[in-house]
Amino acid sequence: MRYLAPAAAIAAALAAPAPLAAQQAAPLDAAALRDAALEDELAWEITEGITTEIGPRLAGTEVEAKARRWSVDKLTSLGFSNVRIEPFDMPVWVRGEERGAIVDPFPQQLYLTALGNSGATPAGGLVGEVAYFPTLADLEAAPEGSLKGRIAFVSHAMTRTQDGSSYGYFGRVRRAGPNLAARKGAAAIVIRSIGTDSHRNPHTGSTNFDEGVKPIPAAALAIPDAEQLERVLKRGKPVRMKLLLTPRQVGIRQSGNVIAEVPGSDPSAGIVLVACHLDSWDLGTGAFDDAAGCGIVAAAAKRVMDAGRPRRTIRILWAGAEEVGIFGGRAYFEAHRGERHDAAGESDFGADRIWRVQTGLAGTAQPVAARLAAALAPLGIAAGSGRAGGGADVAAIVRAGAPGIDLAQDGTRYFDLHHTPDDTLDKIDRVQLRQNVAAWTATLAIVANAPEEIRQNPAAQ
Amino acid sequence: MRYLAPAAAIAAALAAPAPLAAQQAAPLDAAALRDAALEDELAWEITEGITTEIGPRLAGTEVEAKARRWSVDKLTSLGFSNVRIEPFDMPVWVRGEERGAIVDPFPQQLYLTALGNSGATPAGGLVGEVAYFPTLADLEAAPEGSLKGRIAFVSHAMTRTQDGSSYGYFGRVRRAGPNLAARKGAAAIVIRSIGTDSHRNPHTGSTNFDEGVKPIPAAALAIPDAEQLERVLKRGKPVRMKLLLTPRQVGIRQSGNVIAEVPGSDPSAGIVLVACHLDSWDLGTGAFDDAAGCGIVAAAAKRVMDAGRPRRTIRILWAGAEEVGIFGGRAYFEAHRGERHDAAGESDFGADRIWRVQTGLAGTAQPVAARLAAALAPLGIAAGSGRAGGGADVAAIVRAGAPGIDLAQDGTRYFDLHHTPDDTLDKIDRVQLRQNVAAWTATLAIVANAPEEIRQNPAAQ
Repeated sequence: MRYLAPAAAIAAALAAPAPLAAQQAAPLDAAALRDAALEDELAWEITEGITTEIGPRLAGTEVEAKARRWSVDKLTSLGFSNVRIEPFDMPVWVRGEERGAIVDPFPQQLYLTALGNSGATPAGGLVGEVAYFPTLADLEAAPEGSLKGRIAFVSHAMTRTQDGSSYGYFGRVRRAGPNLAARKGAAAIVIRSIGTDSHRNPHTGSTNFDEGVKPIPAAALAIPDAEQLERVLKRGKPVRMKLLLTPRQVGIRQSGNVIAEVPGSDPSAGIVLVACHLDSWDLGTGAFDDAAGCGIVAAAAKRVMDAGRPRRTIRILWAGAEEVGIFGGRAYFEAHRGERHDAAGESDFGADRIWRVQTGLAGTAQPVAARLAAALAPLGIAAGSGRAGGGADVAAIVRAGAPGIDLAQDGTRYFDLHHTPDDTLDKIDRVQLRQNVAAWTATLAIVANAPEEIRQNPAAQ
Repeated sequence: MRYLAPAAAIAAALAAPAPLAAQQAAPLDAAALRDAALEDELAWEITEGITTEIGPRLAGTEVEAKARRWSVDKLTSLGFSNVRIEPFDMPVWVRGEERGAIVDPFPQQLYLTALGNSGATPAGGLVGEVAYFPTLADLEAAPEGSLKGRIAFVSHAMTRTQDGSSYGYFGRVRRAGPNLAARKGAAAIVIRSIGTDSHRNPHTGSTNFDEGVKPIPAAALAIPDAEQLERVLKRGKPVRMKLLLTPRQVGIRQSGNVIAEVPGSDPSAGIVLVACHLDSWDLGTGAFDDAAGCGIVAAAAKRVMDAGRPRRTIRILWAGAEEVGIFGGRAYFEAHRGERHDAAGESDFGADRIWRVQTGLAGTAQPVAARLAAALAPLGIAAGSGRAGGGADVAAIVRAGAPGIDLAQDGTRYFDLHHTPDDTLDKIDRVQLRQNVAAWTATLAIVANAPEEIRQNPAAQ
């Protein structure tokens, strides 16, 4: 537990907020709950269970439905209340065969995977000359129609960042690149995976095409393969690739959110919403993304529940269909926007240690933010000065006025694994997983039980 | 260059052997050549060229033949003498489709790859109940006929070792496991990859079946998949797997050794043989295994050649068909056993830094060993007390009496990459690659030029 300060430092840090905490005669001792959570086994048990007994669980498929049934059984057996599935409909895209190769001048296989919503090649594949763009800006600068019949290849140099912020910028290659290439007449597009590893595991993820733009085949090359293709292109000879992708849109299917609650003692107090997502991409078993998040938030909520009834209801949202378009988060917002949410957060960035807390707790809730910062500091978590977004599945609730709670996980290795076959249980560090549970336990204990008015605009739902 | 001692220490270490070296008025200054080689670019250029322009090069295939032609052109252009291909015939096995999945109780895909010489499943695949053996010893203990219709699964816990010695013991699961399972009536066998990584890249490699034993389908699971299968088995329910493998034996084909020389000044002095292998497994581009080895020995030999004519001929052997049964090494031995080999070594354990030197230099060659040890010490290389085997392709020559030279590379991460799709150029650390070139350059300069009688039994070829 290298991220824990020595015992003396912990005691000193906890001494500071004590006068405030003492004023409230809180029935929940956040510090004690936090420390007990450092021995947590439940988050691991849930993560191991989902990844082993369900495995990959693509949104809208029968295996995602099986994951929901597994989750209802699990959350019910843990003693949560109002455990239920809230179904919704969504369009479903499924992967088919996928192969790629350099045909000329140096024939060899390339490891790649289709992006979500990719179009299909003809059944026999397609061959085209590669048009190389070192960055998305270079593709943007290509003249209209200049890619006719060619396979666009867009590279870049995504670097690892602790806060994952590089994903926003470099992720545009995946999100916007295929649509752009299609508009310029490309027959297909391959991109360098939006990742930071050096393994032959390509990174999938969704892309989208504008209305009226016919989807072209779109794939991500594993990073060693993208580098190989760059080296081949640097020889200066025309490079031809063959691509075979047979994914398809299978129409509207049912997905759903799984919800469970720890009922609060004050029905007029708001809800504290903690989310994760239950669906995963289809290549790995979705351990880091995001079975671990579901394990973390459920384990933390159970610890608070077992310690005594909090003032506010804690609602757990294991969202469906996050990966493919945040359909679960949207469905939740539509169904529950009328309820009072006093705070909302999500665990969806792996399972490595939390290093920063940022919230939207302000005004009358400022003392709550202060108690939270003090309770998390002994776990090596620093309070940041930014404003919390809350995470994909709760972002709409936060935008509508609920204070967000961001417990930022260390993302240094997140994009080694994210959306790849390598997102498997063996990547979970159990010690860091427990630190996550401890942080969320303290957070829920403090926020759900705060006597202060937390939401500054409780009427504006 | 973290493995280099500070300049003062280098000077001190070099001071020791100076009196000996001075006696011989050697035309080659091994220390100067060694230090210049720390700026080497040629080993990288060769490694980059083979892996980029050829890619995977399975023994006995057209692409291996293309690699030989590439090599002849390259070695000729570098100025080596007597550059030639020495062809030989060998049986060839080629990979087909390969898929695996758990069917019951938790259906999900497993990442696996066929082992060399694996049998094929029916075209539609085969389904069988998994019979689990934690180790090869457990499989050995299973009663004859007890595996009828079942898929044997053998696991183990190979650990990383600097010297790679764990491969001998754990590698038996791959080499002997399939034959054993076939003899006990198994329909197929899957093993945990003989590797140390945590990626979904299974490790291939050869297996063999006894005469009269019909080859069964035999595959290696990626390590996360082997661990997943173990977790599923631990639930205690019967586990069924589906396996589809369509490899085939395509008969006798031609492979060949590529040979190049630096002619020695004394035709009666022996040959110093330095080898690598040119073929690779078909999943990666064979950068670590073993394009880098070819780059290292050629770069070192060229540095000695460019500095002045050595006493002994340096012969470079870029062997064919090592991976699939050391066919190139055997062909070399049959063709050249009658020549006097004064020393033989091979670079075939990646491209990480060399940490130990061991040789068969003894008797009148003891001073040569001492000079070698002193020249390598500044590179962070310690002289060991074991006897050198020489490497797979030269082992027969060493067993026949030539002193072996083993420059042991650090194998800590070797079995993360070995025989996997991940054996690609990005894994090569250019600084460590240069240390290898420096070590081999010093070695060739000292051994090829030694005035002493090196071979203790020169008559016994």
